[in-house]
Amino acid sequence: MAPRTACFLVIGNEILSGRTRDANIQVLAHALNGRGIRLMEVRVIPDIPDHIISTVNDCRARFDLLFTSGGIGPTHDDITAACVAEAFGVPLTCHEDSFRQLEALFPAGEFNKARQRMAWLPEGATPIRNSVSTAPGFSLGNVHVMAGVPRIFQAMIDWLAPRLEAGTPLTSTSWYAHDIYEGDLAETLTAIQHDFPMLDIGSYPFEDGQKRGVALVAKGYDAEAVTRAGETLKRLFHELGFTPVEGDPPRTP
Amino acid sequence: MAPRTACFLVIGNEILSGRTRDANIQVLAHALNGRGIRLMEVRVIPDIPDHIISTVNDCRARFDLLFTSGGIGPTHDDITAACVAEAFGVPLTCHEDSFRQLEALFPAGEFNKARQRMAWLPEGATPIRNSVSTAPGFSLGNVHVMAGVPRIFQAMIDWLAPRLEAGTPLTSTSWYAHDIYEGDLAETLTAIQHDFPMLDIGSYPFEDGQKRGVALVAKGYDAEAVTRAGETLKRLFHELGFTPVEGDPPRTP
Repeated sequence: MAPRTACFLVIGNEILSGRTRDANIQVLAHALNGRGIRLMEVRVIPDIPDHIISTVNDCRARFDLLFTSGGIGPTHDDITAACVAEAFGVPLTCHEDSFRQLEALFPAGEFNKARQRMAWLPEGATPIRNSVSTAPGFSLGNVHVMAGVPRIFQAMIDWLAPRLEAGTPLTSTSWYAHDIYEGDLAETLTAIQHDFPMLDIGSYPFEDGQKRGVALVAKGYDAEAVTRAGETLKRLFHELGFTPVEGDPPRTP
Repeated sequence: MAPRTACFLVIGNEILSGRTRDANIQVLAHALNGRGIRLMEVRVIPDIPDHIISTVNDCRARFDLLFTSGGIGPTHDDITAACVAEAFGVPLTCHEDSFRQLEALFPAGEFNKARQRMAWLPEGATPIRNSVSTAPGFSLGNVHVMAGVPRIFQAMIDWLAPRLEAGTPLTSTSWYAHDIYEGDLAETLTAIQHDFPMLDIGSYPFEDGQKRGVALVAKGYDAEAVTRAGETLKRLFHELGFTPVEGDPPRTP
């Protein structure tokens, strides 16, 4: 079982304009980690058809799985389904099941043309169900199209993740200490990375209110090596005269 | 004066693993908006040399400006400077000014090899100064390399933004109302977008505690048209029997 790779395409002018801060990358990353799937790239792109179509085709070819968020509502700027259809070279067709479900949800007279449009999916797509909304997420090939609104995105990935074929689980261990600088441990860390070529040894400076420090993370698909590397990182802090704490450092907001 | 385009490359395993939530996209977007520069794409990629080099070369060719964050500290996983040098086909050389400044900052004996490495920049690069750190940001051609730590990133962009050639300012106006659904106004909105082809008319559902609603945004490089479109969006809410409020809706955390 090999690690599986994924890419996340955030379709949203509102992120690029700075109007909204992304909340979905972290949610997706955690859900994929739990399935042994590695998020390898995120792209945030604007609501421009050519930009969406070419990016979908580039990324679905380069990664095992492609997830998208945004642009699946009923308004004119919701063009993701049409763009994914175009990328796959298939027509948009009315998905009968989804049409009937949407129809049942709206009072008579309110299931207008714009809302009916949400039932049009690329030919061959299967819906992604979720517990909180009628938003029409769908899967087509290795592409999974989800909503941008964080609560709906979360509900969709909760439904979808257990249905994705799992890869090798990624394990990691993390130790941190205060009042140390990266430059104090950089040379030893290079040697540790050399001793564990199968792992990623990462070093992350952090700030915790007025205090700063460094977190060291060992991560990889060989759980036994991760445990040994964690012990080595802990010992490195000790040897330099700092107090290692297990886990991730507290965050400043 | 035409709109200028920018791309932001976030180099960071810690974002892709879900360990850290990005805080820099919004800061960069706001700084660029203020200079009439449009952020067109963001990519988050891992600390893998080939991935960084090919993405730098792809993005610096496709956009007027490329900004990067992350990977410029003293540790073995800080490989951004070397990758940018490789992308441009130039060697890393010791930047004498930066070397002397770094040397002066550390007590005797603490300016070790790892720290000296921070003074090595791609040939032809000029440093990006900042008020809070010795982190060695730099500019080379249309590529601007900055730190990943949010406080340092902010200080670097504060220094850099006023020095970037300005484009046409983007203006926008925003109105929102509670208790309305996108599907209620989608058809009229399509007509409004049709009347203002030079603008982006966007529709954004939001949740504000227990209340939900929709925000409508008109945005573009024609300030007079933005003002007229704003009046039209306000009138649309009124005509449907909702109370429009100017600005962005309050956020749930």
